[in-house]
Order: sequence, then C-alpha cells, then structure tokens
Amino acid sequence: MFVSFEGLDGCGKTTQARLLAEALAADGVDVISTREPGGTPLGEEIRRLVLHGDHVAPWAEAALYTAARAQHVAEVIRPALGRGATVVCDRYLDSSVAYQGGGRRLGVDAVLELNLAAVEGLLPDLTVLVEIDPETAAGRVGDRRDRIEQDLGALWTRVDETYRELAARFPGRYVVVDGRRSIADLAAEIRERVR
Amino acid sequence: MFVSFEGLDGCGKTTQARLLAEALAADGVDVISTREPGGTPLGEEIRRLVLHGDHVAPWAEAALYTAARAQHVAEVIRPALGRGATVVCDRYLDSSVAYQGGGRRLGVDAVLELNLAAVEGLLPDLTVLVEIDPETAAGRVGDRRDRIEQDLGALWTRVDETYRELAARFPGRYVVVDGRRSIADLAAEIRERVR
Repeated sequence: MFVSFEGLDGCGKTTQARLLAEALAADGVDVISTREPGGTPLGEEIRRLVLHGDHVAPWAEAALYTAARAQHVAEVIRPALGRGATVVCDRYLDSSVAYQGGGRRLGVDAVLELNLAAVEGLLPDLTVLVEIDPETAAGRVGDRRDRIEQDLGALWTRVDETYRELAARFPGRYVVVDGRRSIADLAAEIRERVR
Repeated sequence: MFVSFEGLDGCGKTTQARLLAEALAADGVDVISTREPGGTPLGEEIRRLVLHGDHVAPWAEAALYTAARAQHVAEVIRPALGRGATVVCDRYLDSSVAYQGGGRRLGVDAVLELNLAAVEGLLPDLTVLVEIDPETAAGRVGDRRDRIEQDLGALWTRVDETYRELAARFPGRYVVVDGRRSIADLAAEIRERVR
C-alpha cells in the first residue's frame, strides 16, 4: 500500500505521516517512511539546485522536482512496494500539481501529465490531505522559510484551492482531514481511515 | 524562425549547425546559435549531474534533460524568438524523444508529452535530421565518449529508427539530409532548404 500526505507547509502532515508509520509498524506492518523533495542522494542534489540556484524558470523547477520524484520512485518506492511493504510518503506528485500547477499557474493538467509520464503512472492508493487555512499555515511556519516559502498569501491560497480541486477529482484516493484538530485526534482519525 | 539539428553523435550536425548560422549571419539575419544539453548555467549544472552522478534512473535522466530544456527555452530561445531573431539549436526536444524514448525504451509518446508540457508546446519550425548509419557514426565518434555514448550498437540503432519515425510523423517540420555527403555539399543543401 502506498500512502501520501499532502497539504500546505505548517499543516501538520509531517508529524501525521510519522505517527501513521509508527502506528503501522506497531501493528507489525512492514513500513517505509520517506519524503519529497529528497528521499535519494540525487534528489537532495536536485533540491539544492532548485533552492539555491540562480534564477530557475518555473517549468525548469517543475521538471527538476519531477526528476527527483522519478528517481525516488525507481530507487525507493517501487522496490518497497515490490517486496510488499507499505510506503508512507510526506508529499508526492500532488504537491507539484498544487504548488507548480496551481500555485505558480503552470496548469494543473500540464503538471499532472509531466509527472505521470515520469513516474509511469504510479499514484498512491491513498492520499491524506491535511486541510488548514493558508493564514494559519503561514503563521505556523514562522521562520522556517526557504525560497519557495517567501511568497505566501496569494500563492498559498491558490495551492489550497488546487488541493481541494484534486480531492474532488480523485475522491477514491483522497481522504481530507481537518488540520485544526489536536495531533492525537487527527492521528487516530487517519489511522482509522487507513485501516 | 527556430531551426534545430538532430542526428546521432558523429553525424556532422554540430558543424552543419555552425555553418548554417554563419551563412544566415552573412545574409544579414539576426541569428543565435545555441545547443543542448547545456545552453544555460543551470543546464550545465544539470548536465554535470546526469553525466557524473551516481546511478540516475532512466526517467530521472529524461526529466533532468527536460528541466535543462525548459530553462533553455525560457532563458534563451523564447526571448530570442520574441525579438525576431532566428535560433539555430544543436539538438532539441527530438533528441530526448529519440535517445530516451526510443533508445532507452521509455516510449516515444511519453517522452514527447513530458517535454511538450515543459516547453509549453514550443516546437522548431524546421528540424534538420542529418542521417548517417549507426556504425559510421560510432566510428566517427571514436574516443570522444561519455556515459551516454558507452553503450552504442543496439542503442544507436533504436535512436536512428526513432528519428526516422519522427521524420515520418512530422513531415512538415523535418528535413532529412544525407550525412555521408561532403561538408560543403551538405551545407549548401541545408542553406537552400532553410531559405
């Protein structure tokens, strides 16, 4: 089983991904926790290029994240799924669609196609969207900002809208949870939905 | 006008691209010569990652070349076309389709879609395919080999077949010339076809 976590930075998905992986492991499930961008040495190098390179054109940025994802799928995700493990991934393809497709206005369908080609159609069985309003997210993120997080406000509102659009488009895959709830309540709900 | 040159390494396209650009400049045309992969500082960094990185998954490689191309289009090609210049480019999108799509068997349509998304549909007005049989190309290349050139033979035969397939699919855009002819004869023919 392949589970991804999505949402705005600050929504709490990283904590929830960790808690789900721990709960599954406690149940005796063979589980792998991973994250994007990154997840492989090549992915880390690509991430460095995107964050600290000079001007990176929007479509180059989208293709670089796609490249990191393709490597992550080939090196980590497919081998784990192939041996029967459950993969819990903090951000996956939908992040690119929401941030680059919607947020940076490259187009939801175009970014989705770019990514689906590069991962040969691999979509999660379940995507947990931790919903939170953009202002709350921005407030929580506070100082841990990098290049992508400097331009909040309008950008995050578009990202949030795109996530909702994806949840409506893929109702069988998406589980939407309320990020304003307590960490423990949210973890219990997600555990229940995944089971 | 946007003209790309394609063909196997060793086919003579780099020389022909240079000669065409010189002939156009001599005619008073505002012309920009460029090449892929590379063409921008980010593109050179990406190229370094692909050639000297540890194991790079085939789709990650394809997406990295796509990222370099997206940057090249945004930073060099579109601005030049926008001010009315003619762009002569040594390799473009068809190289990825031929090498990754056909050569590395990722699929012609999938690699084409990946790239068309990232360049927002920008195709050359004219693509000059310098045809040469794979053995002759390999013989000419001799020692100037990098990672991509170590696995000749079957790979180059598939690349060559894919180029022919693309030429058949885009007859209005492709001009196929015989790379066995002399440099001067070939340059004269290409100049004529472009005019």
